[in-house]
Amino acid sequence: MPIKESELILNPDGSVYHLNLKPENIAENIIFVGDQNRVEKITKHFDSISFEIQKREFKTQTGIYRGKHISVISTGIGPDNIDIVLNELDALVNIDLNTRQPKKVLKSLNIVRVGTSGSLQQDIPVDSFVLSTHGLDLNAMMHAYQINSVSNPDIENAFIEHTHWNSDKGRPLVIENDKSLEKKFESHLVFKGITATAGGFYGPQGRVLRLPLQDPDLNHKIDSFHFKGVRISNLEMETSVIYGLSKLLGHKALSLNAIIANRANGTFSENPGLAVEKLITYTLERI
Amino acid sequence: MPIKESELILNPDGSVYHLNLKPENIAENIIFVGDQNRVEKITKHFDSISFEIQKREFKTQTGIYRGKHISVISTGIGPDNIDIVLNELDALVNIDLNTRQPKKVLKSLNIVRVGTSGSLQQDIPVDSFVLSTHGLDLNAMMHAYQINSVSNPDIENAFIEHTHWNSDKGRPLVIENDKSLEKKFESHLVFKGITATAGGFYGPQGRVLRLPLQDPDLNHKIDSFHFKGVRISNLEMETSVIYGLSKLLGHKALSLNAIIANRANGTFSENPGLAVEKLITYTLERI
Repeated sequence: MPIKESELILNPDGSVYHLNLKPENIAENIIFVGDQNRVEKITKHFDSISFEIQKREFKTQTGIYRGKHISVISTGIGPDNIDIVLNELDALVNIDLNTRQPKKVLKSLNIVRVGTSGSLQQDIPVDSFVLSTHGLDLNAMMHAYQINSVSNPDIENAFIEHTHWNSDKGRPLVIENDKSLEKKFESHLVFKGITATAGGFYGPQGRVLRLPLQDPDLNHKIDSFHFKGVRISNLEMETSVIYGLSKLLGHKALSLNAIIANRANGTFSENPGLAVEKLITYTLERI
Repeated sequence: MPIKESELILNPDGSVYHLNLKPENIAENIIFVGDQNRVEKITKHFDSISFEIQKREFKTQTGIYRGKHISVISTGIGPDNIDIVLNELDALVNIDLNTRQPKKVLKSLNIVRVGTSGSLQQDIPVDSFVLSTHGLDLNAMMHAYQINSVSNPDIENAFIEHTHWNSDKGRPLVIENDKSLEKKFESHLVFKGITATAGGFYGPQGRVLRLPLQDPDLNHKIDSFHFKGVRISNLEMETSVIYGLSKLLGHKALSLNAIIANRANGTFSENPGLAVEKLITYTLERI
């Protein structure tokens, strides 16, 4: 049965609804950034750019970097935007937009996120890179889908017990990265850890301006969580959902972050732009 | 105690981090839109524009419409972006950015959202307006905060029972609009109902492309929910969080939507741009 127009919404030109892209506009290697203005900080290194478009916060540029075909896409902020971006990218490669039916032979995209983040651990200094071994999902969005095949109940239950997690918030999920991409991107320059993903910037990440938190100790409990030698290295808003939806849809995903602040010892990068620039170069060389 | 720099982050020019705004840049009357390109569809009606700025998906224009001082701000998509926008707007009016302390005398902003949405009920036709009496929060973000004072357990429990809500998703919340703004904006042109707010566009709103849903019947259960004569009129991604954070922070908020699709009978507006334009005019006349 064809997928209904109200589910898979196409623009009059046949492009997918939010991203405004057609299948021929994207490469199999994709770099995600959050900020639409960061797209060009990556593609300025390209040898050529063959396509670009923007709708709302979703900006895409596709081109060639040293013979490799790469698309850079800005996702905007947060899990809900990742839901839009990953479902629409998957539709571009794995659904026939004319017959509105999933294809028989499915394609797997390589997705690498280049983000910035604050470290939660004293020994992960500013200007270093963190590679997320897992996404720890604290925002409950993934529970709209059937997630048993990508969840890791052992570590999830340990986290729930360690934090006395309030069940009103939705059950935390832990989702692994793609191990083949991890191999490609690991080096002595890169720290590894679990990246926690919140669905908001202030209360959901433990920041207090004028509103008290449901659990004022939660950030400390997150920092002090250990499971079989792994700990939570940083806190941001996208990684767990990139990992979760990619795994469910059959794509490979890896999240890298330049650490521009260290929340454990209160230090800030003196040149965050340079830290990001170095992570961009590192990413382009290995993708 | 001053609020720390890592909690209340200011840009080098003293503006708040994401919105890039200073206190003098905004009016007390604020219109929210999602899409950065919709800001000018509103301010083109203004007599004058005194300020504008954009960072990422957050675009602001402030000016005068028939003697009224109004700011129009694009929030981007979803609950996490609303967390950013409302906390930063509140900081602009209710925190002294020099001393980093909450002010003694607090200000209350008037916030009206102008959105587009799909109706869930047969008798709410395309091109009509819906005013949200309540936001039904299905995305769990608000649980980072202390929300007892704004929750409505009677209707929440009735919804949980009616839908056999999966507790892994986080507890749904119901939050009321501001009644004084409702009085200003109600008329025979406007339908009223509960607006459900999801944290995503595909699975979280019951859309199926390639991924099966945790509960394939959830949308039907949402459509068929009734509580003391109120029902759920539409489904989108911002209203409940605008209502929740506004109430907690002491601001007045109302959400209006132009209905551009009717999901119950499969009809679409023949001219969605005109429907939005009419809602913009309606909003500007009454704000």
